[in-house]
This record gives sequence, structure tokens and C-alpha cells, in this order.
Amino acid sequence: MTVNIQEALTDIVGPKGILTGEDVSQRLDGWMGAPQCQAKAIVRPATTEELSAVMKLCHQNDQTVTTHGGMTGLVGGAISSPEDVVVSLERMRNIIEIDAENRTLTAEAGVTLQSLQEAAEGIDLFYPVDLGARGSATIGGNIATNAGGNRVLRYGMTRDSILGLEVVLADGTVVSSLSKVIKNNTGYDLRQLFIGSEGTLGIVTKAVVRLRPKPRGEATALVAVEDFNHLTRLLSLAEGALSGGLSSFEVMWNDFYSLVTSFERHKAPLPASSPFYVILETQGNSDEAEQERLEVLLGEALEQELISDAVLTQSVSEREKVWAIRDDIEALLSLNPIHGFDISLPIPAMQGYLDTLRQDLDQHFPDCRLVVFGHLGDGNLHVIIGQVPMEDKKRLDEVVYRGLSPLGGSISAEHGIGHEKKPYLQYSRSENELSLMKTLKLALDPKQLLNRGKIFD
Amino acid sequence: MTVNIQEALTDIVGPKGILTGEDVSQRLDGWMGAPQCQAKAIVRPATTEELSAVMKLCHQNDQTVTTHGGMTGLVGGAISSPEDVVVSLERMRNIIEIDAENRTLTAEAGVTLQSLQEAAEGIDLFYPVDLGARGSATIGGNIATNAGGNRVLRYGMTRDSILGLEVVLADGTVVSSLSKVIKNNTGYDLRQLFIGSEGTLGIVTKAVVRLRPKPRGEATALVAVEDFNHLTRLLSLAEGALSGGLSSFEVMWNDFYSLVTSFERHKAPLPASSPFYVILETQGNSDEAEQERLEVLLGEALEQELISDAVLTQSVSEREKVWAIRDDIEALLSLNPIHGFDISLPIPAMQGYLDTLRQDLDQHFPDCRLVVFGHLGDGNLHVIIGQVPMEDKKRLDEVVYRGLSPLGGSISAEHGIGHEKKPYLQYSRSENELSLMKTLKLALDPKQLLNRGKIFD
Repeated sequence: MTVNIQEALTDIVGPKGILTGEDVSQRLDGWMGAPQCQAKAIVRPATTEELSAVMKLCHQNDQTVTTHGGMTGLVGGAISSPEDVVVSLERMRNIIEIDAENRTLTAEAGVTLQSLQEAAEGIDLFYPVDLGARGSATIGGNIATNAGGNRVLRYGMTRDSILGLEVVLADGTVVSSLSKVIKNNTGYDLRQLFIGSEGTLGIVTKAVVRLRPKPRGEATALVAVEDFNHLTRLLSLAEGALSGGLSSFEVMWNDFYSLVTSFERHKAPLPASSPFYVILETQGNSDEAEQERLEVLLGEALEQELISDAVLTQSVSEREKVWAIRDDIEALLSLNPIHGFDISLPIPAMQGYLDTLRQDLDQHFPDCRLVVFGHLGDGNLHVIIGQVPMEDKKRLDEVVYRGLSPLGGSISAEHGIGHEKKPYLQYSRSENELSLMKTLKLALDPKQLLNRGKIFD
Repeated sequence: MTVNIQEALTDIVGPKGILTGEDVSQRLDGWMGAPQCQAKAIVRPATTEELSAVMKLCHQNDQTVTTHGGMTGLVGGAISSPEDVVVSLERMRNIIEIDAENRTLTAEAGVTLQSLQEAAEGIDLFYPVDLGARGSATIGGNIATNAGGNRVLRYGMTRDSILGLEVVLADGTVVSSLSKVIKNNTGYDLRQLFIGSEGTLGIVTKAVVRLRPKPRGEATALVAVEDFNHLTRLLSLAEGALSGGLSSFEVMWNDFYSLVTSFERHKAPLPASSPFYVILETQGNSDEAEQERLEVLLGEALEQELISDAVLTQSVSEREKVWAIRDDIEALLSLNPIHGFDISLPIPAMQGYLDTLRQDLDQHFPDCRLVVFGHLGDGNLHVIIGQVPMEDKKRLDEVVYRGLSPLGGSISAEHGIGHEKKPYLQYSRSENELSLMKTLKLALDPKQLLNRGKIFD
């Protein structure tokens, strides 16, 4: 007997909990410019119990399920097919508990990153993960993709801020690990298994996040550096001198700094004549104390000739002007069509990789523009390649990714694999690693119903 | 055809690689006072390839394998039976690579924690995980048990310092994930699956650890606190004021402080009349700078009446005297027979838990002594109960552990489950969590040959 899946789903979640027809196709499959969503239905359970029943039904009927978070992913992780049912937790947006004393917050997966950050601020605490997409991205999506962002150097990735999880498995089983303690060596760390698995092993429904003390002051400097080796020495010096206070160490290669500061909206605080620029930011107890610590550091760095020039910002507006350079993604659009890559490398291998990449690009795409910036402290580079036609994307991907493998680099530092980077996963992972991943997938989702075809086939 | 397993193993590892007979029984199954080791043989492969061949052989012959690290575990994780083969990586003690610029170190699993720490210091860097057992404990054992120790507040557990792993699975497959990058969102985080799995999913053979800048100065204070609620407020204040510099926040309940300082070898820096004492330590750029930061903090804490008294140590010897109180485990032996428990709790639940525990102990063990200290910032308490006969251990375990479950506490913060805590695992983990752990075990080790009977049956 065939079940009418739409009817059966409606029986579980009620009419408010299901979208079909045009309500489905009006949605996009991802970020700006993504294609229309295709699916039998978008199911929007209001509780973990409803989701559990939905998954049980789908499991019994061999129905594939694609998960939607805030739809801000960059690797096509949310793409579905007309045969799929899409699950979105957009109706599970409750903050369940804020424990100021224990410094934890328990939230449903559909809560946006920004709501979560604001709830933490409401009790004078701080959730450190931060991304440009904070207004739409959900904590469930952040967990599924192990989101990184602007403060990884000091606070780590999403993985490092999650204490407990509740997850619904492919067969509807609810696994509740909503632990609120930091140290918990009691068997396998199930939470870590689900974090970063891009919804292929289970659907996160609730999470306990760890909050931190809110920084009460900060200081920001922009410095010019003449030699790649000086960058790493400067990073070490800064981490030592600012002890745990260093919150950003953002490097802009000259090609990036020159391009962005060529726009009139910026007044370049330093001339665009050095090969590297770094934004240093420290957070601590008061603006004055951090300003002083950063000043001492800059003095020492000048003395050791690690930097050739420096601007220590003296006001909020000066600070914002420096960050505006780093954040001016719009300036990059002048190189359209552009292609962004998010890669990791061991720091000593970075400059060599970029030199080779530049040569390869000159050979294969003589008209292209290469622009580089990134979180050097995390080994994470954002490589932007402009003026390459969209139809050459696959060839370009090959050129960028193939050089990473011999250097121990990663084809995805923060963004994940999803659908888009799947063909290149073997550049970062060995055959035995992939085979072990597949063993785990089959153990948890033997029918391969959850986000089928994401990460690997 | 039956294989003579000892002969077949000798063929793989050579005569130097295998111990049998008295060489086995001369070893202990664990720490001080543990029983003699029982096993068919102790196999000591010299390379990953040898271990892979050993595991393949054992897999083909349904031979159970127990793993030995530095034998400093506290939960009987290394206990073997006469039917087991023991694998020890004590001949795999090479540090393979030190990358000063990338701040990573790659080591074989048999390297002791202390050797690893010293190798890092040799290049003016720092491996932050530290334990009393550093001279014997191996990095492989630290990873298998996700060791914690003295600096978790600032640097996290072993889990947070491991970038890459090489693991041999139960069937001999070598999975190499020796990544040296911090950010690597390329599929499942296999490394996290093995860390803390107590050798039941695979045997760690190599690891890439993350090194940190070496702190150049520190400052230490001992303070008296009159109210449990003031402890958490002091912690928040300290984390804020010292920004990332706070490296220790060790709380001693009065029962601990009174007992230890009653010994003549200590001169109590503060009278034993307050309910709580805290050791605060900050690490940073110079002794002077940290001293100053700590002094400002203490002033603020006194003003807010969070502390009633304080001693800011002025010299290395004064600092050592304060730490000697916290570290005087010998003083606890005066309460023999003693039983140590390593538990976690959400901070707001701690005092209530201890009050109830005290009442339960009064009822069931009226002659016992309860002594408490711990890493408050991590939610981790060390609960010492003295003057309870060894034969009452099981009853005592029940009393300590049963109260944790309703409060969301953990029966093992750092030490793991091993053999000893197995009966109580259900106090920290739900049925569905345990069932998912068993699914993972069966997926990776379907014959259940690796550390059989550890963590769960």
C-alpha cells in the first residue's frame, strides 16, 4: 500500500506545518542567485516529537529528506530534488533556557545566530561565533556545518562552543545529549560526531551553547609588513604579548589592499606599497588597557623590524574605517565574474602555494585577477579569483584545489563540502578516510535518506 | 587450522617486539597497587605497519586486543584477561616533526607527555595539556582518554589540542588524518570520534598536536570567599578583567583547606576560617604585567565584597607554597581508606549537590570524611571521601553518582569510564545515547575485539 506522503506528513505537523506547490518553488535552494527549491513538500515541525514522527514516516516509506537551515551556506548543501521532502526547523525558534551562572544557553535549532547573540548580551555575556550571515543563519545550521567566522583565533569554531545537542536520527530516534557541563568523559563524544556532518547523520533540534564573559574594551591597529616570514613572527609576538587577548589577526595581501583602497569610499590609512597588511585586534577589560597593550606590542614589533608602519586607531570611527577595508566584499565585485575559495594551509606552505597558484593562473587564465586575504592565525585563506567566465569554474576549481593535497591543505576551511565541493573531496581526504566516513553514514542512516548525495555519493 | 598466535605475532614484530610469560605478569594492569597483567602476550610493534599487520592477524583469528598506554589511568581501562593480547606502543616514541612556524608537532603515540612538552619548549613554544602523570602518560593514552588536567580553563582538554591523527582500526586498516591545519571542514571529523573513545574504536599511532606561544610571565593569588554565589561572580570578574589570561581558578572547600593546612609542612597563608579558598593564576607577557593585572582584579573583588581576604604572591617560592596546598594529595592519605571521585556539574547545581551528598553520607557512612576541591571554572569537582572501608566502595559509588543524573552532572569529568565506572554510565547517558555508542562500536569493530568490555558491555 502506498502512502500519500503529503497527507501523512500533514497528519503529523498540521496544515501550518507543511508547504507545497508554489510555496515550495518560491523559496530558493540557497543564497542569493540560487535556483528555485524543488521538493514534494517543505515540512516545518513545531517540536522535536513532530520531527521524530516525520522522520519515522519517511524512514518507513524510503523517503529522502533534505534539511534547510537559514539558507546562507555557500556550497549547495541545501539543494533538493523534486523527489525529496525538505525539513526546515524555522518554527522551532525558542530559546529554552538561559543560565547566567553556569553561562550556558539552550536553544531550539531554528534560532538565528543573531537572536542567540542578543540573548547572551541580554545577560551581559557573549556568544563568540560570529558571521556576516548572522541575521539569517540558524544555530542548527551553524552546528551542522561547524561554522567558523571572525573570532576563531581566540574562541575556536562552532564545535568549540557547543556543550550539548539533541538530535533526531534518520529513523526518528531522538538522541538527547543536552549536557551543560564542560568536561564529560563518559563514552563517545556523540556531539562531535554530528557537528560538521552537514545534516547527513542526523538533524540537530536543540543545542546547549557555552557563553563567555563579554569583552569590556578593545583596540585595533593596522600594520604594514614587508616579508611573509615576518607575518608568522608577528603573530607569535602578538599572541605572547597580548596573552589570550588577541582576537583578530587578519592579513590582506597587497592585491586585496590595493584594490579595495582604490575606491574613493576608503581613505587608505597606510600607503598601498607593502606586500602585506595586518589588522590586529585585542579584546579585554577596558579600551585604555587594550590600547596600552597594543601600543607596547607595536613598539616591540617596530624595534624587531617585523613591521614597517603602523596605525593604532584612536576612536570607534577610526576602528570602523580599518575594518571597512577588510569587509569591503563589494569592491571585489568590480572583478566580476568572481570565484571565491575558502582554503586552509599550514602557514609555512602558504606563500609557496600562492606563488605556484599565480603561475598556474597566468598560464591557464591569463586575464584573471587574484586577490587574497584571510585569517592567517587559523591557516585560513580566502582566495578570490576574478575575471574568469562562469563556464570555466570547473577548470578553475581544479587549478586551485589540486595544489593543496601535497601540502596538507584543506579544500574547505569553514564552508563545508555540500554539493559543490564533493568532486574535490579526495584532494583533502584519503581513500581510507572516505571509506570510514561512509561506514559511519551507513551505520547511522542505512537507507541513506538524509541529505543524500551531500559530502559524498 | 588453528594459528599459534604467539608465533604468528613474533613473525610480525620480531622477538624484541613481544613479551610473554613472566615478562607479562611482572607488569601491572594499571597504576600503583593494580593487579598483575594477564595476557597471552604483550606485543610492542615498532611501526604503524607492524601494528596494522598485528591487528589484521588478530582480526582473522577473533583475537581480542587490550591497549596499554603509560598505565596512569584511574578507571581500569588497561585491565586485560588471560585470553587477550595486549598491544603497547612503548617502542613508538619518535617525535617525527616539529614545525615551529606552523606551531605543530607530530609524534608517535608512545611519546610521553613530558617529552612532548619538552620538545615544544625546545623551540620556545608550549603544549598546554599538563597532568601529574606527565612522566609516564603517553600522548596516545592522553588522546584515547581525552585527558584534561590543570589548564583546561584556558586551553581546553586534549581534544582541543589535536589537529590530526593516524589510527589503526580493529581489522588493521590504517586511517591517516595527519592534518596540520586548524580549520578543516571536509566531511566528518574522524579525529574527534577517536579522541576519548578509550581505545575501543581504533588504536592511535601518531598525532599532530597544536602548540601555543609560551607564557612569559605569571602571577598567583590565594583568596578567601564567604559565599558560594560569590565564587561564580568572582570567576566572571576574573575572566573579564584578565581577558584571556586566566589560567587557573582552583577552588578548595574549607574541609580541604583546613585538613591540608593542619599539617606542619604548610604555613597557611590565610586563616582556615572561610568556607572557600580560590587560587587564581594568570599567565601573560611578563611577571610584572600579570602581577599588576591581578592586583587590580583583587582590588575590584574586595570592593565588590566578593572576597574577604587575599594574598598576592610576591616570589616564586611564595607561589609554590600556595600551589603546594592544592597539590598535597598526601595529606588526604591521612583519611585512609580514601575514595576519589571526579565529577562534573553545572555550577549552579554544585552547592546543592554537595549539601545532599553530605546528608546522604551522614546517614550511610556516619564516620566518613568528605573533602572537596576542584576546577570550578570547568564545572569539575574532585570529591574525596575518607574513612570508608574498601568493601563499601560499591555502596559509596551509588551514593555519589545517583545524585548527578537529575542535575545534568557527569560521573566522569576527566578520567573516563574504563572498567570501573561502567556500572554507573547510565547515570550520565540515556538509553538512546548508549545505543548509538554501541552502533558506532559495531560499525568500526564488528567482532568487538578492541578493548572488549570497556566503557560498555
